[in-house]
Amino acid sequence: MDSNIGTAMHALMEELFPICRSLTGSGVRESLEILKRIAPLEIHEVPSGTRCFDWTVPDEWSVREAYVADSSGRKVIDFAENNLHLVGYSEPIEAEMDLEDLQVHLHSIPDQPGAIPYRTSYYDRTWGFCLCQKDRDALVPGTYRVKIDSTLAPGVLNYAELIIPGEQEDEVFLATNICHPSMANNELSGPVTCAFLARHLLEKPCRYTYRIAFVPETIGAIAYLSRNVERMKARTIAGYQVVCTGGPDDFTYLESRQGDTLADRAARHVLTQSGAAHRLLDYTHRASDERQYCSPRIGLPVGSLMRSKYHEYPQYHTSLDDLDFVTAEQLASSYALYCSILDGIEANRTYHTTLDGCEPNLGRRGFYPTLGGQSHKAADTRLYRGIMAYADGDHDLIGIATRHGWSITDAARAAQTLVEAGLIKEAARSTGKEETLRK
Amino acid sequence: MDSNIGTAMHALMEELFPICRSLTGSGVRESLEILKRIAPLEIHEVPSGTRCFDWTVPDEWSVREAYVADSSGRKVIDFAENNLHLVGYSEPIEAEMDLEDLQVHLHSIPDQPGAIPYRTSYYDRTWGFCLCQKDRDALVPGTYRVKIDSTLAPGVLNYAELIIPGEQEDEVFLATNICHPSMANNELSGPVTCAFLARHLLEKPCRYTYRIAFVPETIGAIAYLSRNVERMKARTIAGYQVVCTGGPDDFTYLESRQGDTLADRAARHVLTQSGAAHRLLDYTHRASDERQYCSPRIGLPVGSLMRSKYHEYPQYHTSLDDLDFVTAEQLASSYALYCSILDGIEANRTYHTTLDGCEPNLGRRGFYPTLGGQSHKAADTRLYRGIMAYADGDHDLIGIATRHGWSITDAARAAQTLVEAGLIKEAARSTGKEETLRK
Amino acid sequence: MDSNIGTAMHALMEELFPICRSLTGSGVRESLEILKRIAPLEIHEVPSGTRCFDWTVPDEWSVREAYVADSSGRKVIDFAENNLHLVGYSEPIEAEMDLEDLQVHLHSIPDQPGAIPYRTSYYDRTWGFCLCQKDRDALVPGTYRVKIDSTLAPGVLNYAELIIPGEQEDEVFLATNICHPSMANNELSGPVTCAFLARHLLEKPCRYTYRIAFVPETIGAIAYLSRNVERMKARTIAGYQVVCTGGPDDFTYLESRQGDTLADRAARHVLTQSGAAHRLLDYTHRASDERQYCSPRIGLPVGSLMRSKYHEYPQYHTSLDDLDFVTAEQLASSYALYCSILDGIEANRTYHTTLDGCEPNLGRRGFYPTLGGQSHKAADTRLYRGIMAYADGDHDLIGIATRHGWSITDAARAAQTLVEAGLIKEAARSTGKEETLRK
Repeated sequence: MDSNIGTAMHALMEELFPICRSLTGSGVRESLEILKRIAPLEIHEVPSGTRCFDWTVPDEWSVREAYVADSSGRKVIDFAENNLHLVGYSEPIEAEMDLEDLQVHLHSIPDQPGAIPYRTSYYDRTWGFCLCQKDRDALVPGTYRVKIDSTLAPGVLNYAELIIPGEQEDEVFLATNICHPSMANNELSGPVTCAFLARHLLEKPCRYTYRIAFVPETIGAIAYLSRNVERMKARTIAGYQVVCTGGPDDFTYLESRQGDTLADRAARHVLTQSGAAHRLLDYTHRASDERQYCSPRIGLPVGSLMRSKYHEYPQYHTSLDDLDFVTAEQLASSYALYCSILDGIEANRTYHTTLDGCEPNLGRRGFYPTLGGQSHKAADTRLYRGIMAYADGDHDLIGIATRHGWSITDAARAAQTLVEAGLIKEAARSTGKEETLRK
Repeated sequence: MDSNIGTAMHALMEELFPICRSLTGSGVRESLEILKRIAPLEIHEVPSGTRCFDWTVPDEWSVREAYVADSSGRKVIDFAENNLHLVGYSEPIEAEMDLEDLQVHLHSIPDQPGAIPYRTSYYDRTWGFCLCQKDRDALVPGTYRVKIDSTLAPGVLNYAELIIPGEQEDEVFLATNICHPSMANNELSGPVTCAFLARHLLEKPCRYTYRIAFVPETIGAIAYLSRNVERMKARTIAGYQVVCTGGPDDFTYLESRQGDTLADRAARHVLTQSGAAHRLLDYTHRASDERQYCSPRIGLPVGSLMRSKYHEYPQYHTSLDDLDFVTAEQLASSYALYCSILDGIEANRTYHTTLDGCEPNLGRRGFYPTLGGQSHKAADTRLYRGIMAYADGDHDLIGIATRHGWSITDAARAAQTLVEAGLIKEAARSTGKEETLRK
Repeated sequence: MDSNIGTAMHALMEELFPICRSLTGSGVRESLEILKRIAPLEIHEVPSGTRCFDWTVPDEWSVREAYVADSSGRKVIDFAENNLHLVGYSEPIEAEMDLEDLQVHLHSIPDQPGAIPYRTSYYDRTWGFCLCQKDRDALVPGTYRVKIDSTLAPGVLNYAELIIPGEQEDEVFLATNICHPSMANNELSGPVTCAFLARHLLEKPCRYTYRIAFVPETIGAIAYLSRNVERMKARTIAGYQVVCTGGPDDFTYLESRQGDTLADRAARHVLTQSGAAHRLLDYTHRASDERQYCSPRIGLPVGSLMRSKYHEYPQYHTSLDDLDFVTAEQLASSYALYCSILDGIEANRTYHTTLDGCEPNLGRRGFYPTLGGQSHKAADTRLYRGIMAYADGDHDLIGIATRHGWSITDAARAAQTLVEAGLIKEAARSTGKEETLRK
């Protein structure tokens, strides 16, 4: 585990944490500008009112100030202190009202008296404030002054995209969300992890083209698909929704809708090989943008590797999902697994033997241990023999490695040696996508 | 559980119990006439000697009197007391004989000294009496007078049929047996359950056509198939052999020969959802008329949901399988599960999304909970989203519901809402029959 | 278990044990001549230098004398005492050298001080001696005289073949290895078992043609395939690599590469029915000539039933794998299971019902128990009914028997009765090979 990477990820998250992000607005743009320091993202705009499949891009939301003050003028709830205090997409208001009338616009969690809940109302025009239950209980009857200096007006929805061209047009897709305000696991961990993965991919030439999208959840994913879906359907061999990567819980891999795509096979292989505690969930447990990417007429092979999964941890969607909840080490471990998965996909190929039949004579090629205990060579021989045994144009390296309990890395290294020895050659199209489809 | 239904079923069974039924004869007709009070069955005749596949309809059997009297004239075995005393299809005899000669015609069960066994000899001409072992042991040496006033002569085999036309020509098939004399679980429970299911189906318009057959076991099923097989092969989407529904044991679902037909999938779904204790048995455990319905060149998708399964309970095929062995509650529970299964089949459809891609905007249609704890709406949202997620023309509602752990009822209700909202439409042919075939 | 067979097998092994076998040479020929007494093998030659796929047949190796003597002239290591003392394919040498120089040519096993290891160097020209660690430790510094009077010169590689013609050209393939010197489980048990299986097959007419090959491991199998592969690919329906059949451990069945061929299905069926303790291993555990027979462009359906599996027992490839390690009873048990498997393959057929539908009337054909406790007949009736229930041209007898928990023997007997009664007929091609392929 590269602890420097984890530290850098956490530091970036600290910088991004206070910014007020939402579906739209300057907070999103500000966040994307910061992320551009890690990887050269290109920021795009979709105008409000644009029709995207069944959806319409909403007005842009801007907030300058928002608070509730008591009769003495003291601000008892203040957006400036924590942007979670304001219900997302609150419309402007400036009014005085009794506590009783105010209460219907307040949100708190009785069971978590110290947590400010996260609430939004994107498509119903309303306003509201969120606060800790204990602060709410301390409000005394009387008149309160409510001020929300916000604007809901035509503007743009922003997203960022990075296309890293590879040797092949086939694409691997990584997506994450940039619409959550001050919460750490869900969701600053996702964009931060994605940015560092982009940097990792930029460090060396890639076989596949990488498409990395930083989008507001749901409407952003839908808007992004509306612009790119045909190309993505034609080219995507695997994809991941990168969210919730920073929490303390064991890994969860949420399978794609089809459940056995290259994305799923690579992730399961790497998780098993890693020895990390994890569970697999099928697509009925979906709840993030894979809902769009995997939807019936889109059908992309998109899974999601997470640590603390949305809806499952008590801090979820509250102010308790903070910078202490995610650690450098947890972030680094997710980053490392995603790197291994992407490396595995890069390394995955399908081969044909070049022989008319039978095993090759490994001995005369020096691939076989001669007399005595050359245990390293013996391990290699097992790899060579296993790959030759399944080099039939049907089994990809991930399949062969999984079957034998090897890592894809070791299998790919041995396969390369066999290629160089002229014993196997790559099948015409060997992404592993076909093996899945053929099943 | 509707205890009134159970009580009514048991009451009907009490009325039917004393009648002497067999493969043929007046007892069958008398029983069918009583069942017609519950549902408008049509009684059919197949003449003796009619060739049906590999079989020939036997002569009709009538019994007026049958007894064994001792030398004092006292009837020690009397058909008038219990029709199980006479071996089914016994030929006529009037003779005196020693106990020793009589013994070869007597049947009892040493291990169950208080049980009269049920024996028949449909295809070998012979005669015999069945009695409790303890009564047999009490017979004293001497001369006995044996009288069986029976007729075995050309006549008819009767069966009853009810076709309930539905919106579609596709058929659901229910079959049961009417050839057992005075035994309750196997087999008065079957025809009684079937009659009440018919009444249930008549109460409202059905999507599918229902074919309900009350036939003598084996030869009756074969005769019925010989007249209807082409239509049934073309139209049957699911079927059940309704027998042994009244005993005290946990439910058993016996799968069809193919094992994964709509009949099987609906039954397993409902059993799982019901929470009722049950087991699944594959087709190697077949022993009733599914042997004919599922046979190689017939191949209907017919399973069987039972409580106390034939061959497995000690009272089976004896006088101990009596009206106390079946209870109103047990009958009602079987009836209720069969109703749920049939309702599930009616509700099962396959849908396509009408969208070009991505999820629908449920919020603007009012399908999405707005702020705060609308937990009922949240549950509905999960249904809407799950159905939309699999509305690809491949997954039927039973499949989607099973996958998510929902009831087909809830899924169908949500699907109807989505249809009305124009978000999904039914696939061209959506009985769920194809999904099975495609697998 | 036929203990006479086991005794005869062990006696034959005792005779073969001292002979020095290798890939080539007179020891192989001498061994094959002895095996010819059991079954009429035909001995073939492949000249040195012959190209076989990726391999070349090596020179023939002959040894007349080989020893290491100390300065007093005493032979401290002598090939005449145990042929394992000499590294296989050692080149000739006659020299004096210090112990230190000698040591690099010595092989022993520190952890097994009483075992002479088995070493060969077929493709690297070198020489060496193997000895017990304790004997090696006893060597005193000084000058040793080393003499290996061997020849490595063009000659032939020998193998033996027996083709037993059957009613059909479809072939069952049995293969074993004849290249191991004085070791019992791996590998005299294989050729001895194969020879007795050949004798068993010669005792009665067979449905299938049997191809039995006694070959040196790897190069022999490859040479054999190079001469016969097209015919074998076209005709082989099942095959087994018969090795390691004599040791004390539980049975292991190593599956073919495809994993569900007739070879695999027959072996698993017989193992389950036998009640013998066993495990199944998939093809990733391959390490014998199935590596050639199942290789990508060969693809024969070859599995392997073993007792103590190569690489797994401590005596493996040492002098401790001796005649005490294999017993008559262990050999007989492997022989018996292989016989049952071959008998099962012979008996396996696929049937169609001859009826248009429904079950046959077994009663009027006397196949059905009449009144009372004919339990034997009842068991037969279950067989008849089960076979009729699946006589659809798709399920073979091994499949039907496995499904019901019957032996293939019982199923085949019942099927024959049904054939004679005209109720079923054999499908056009019914080897069970197609069922597997269709899956």
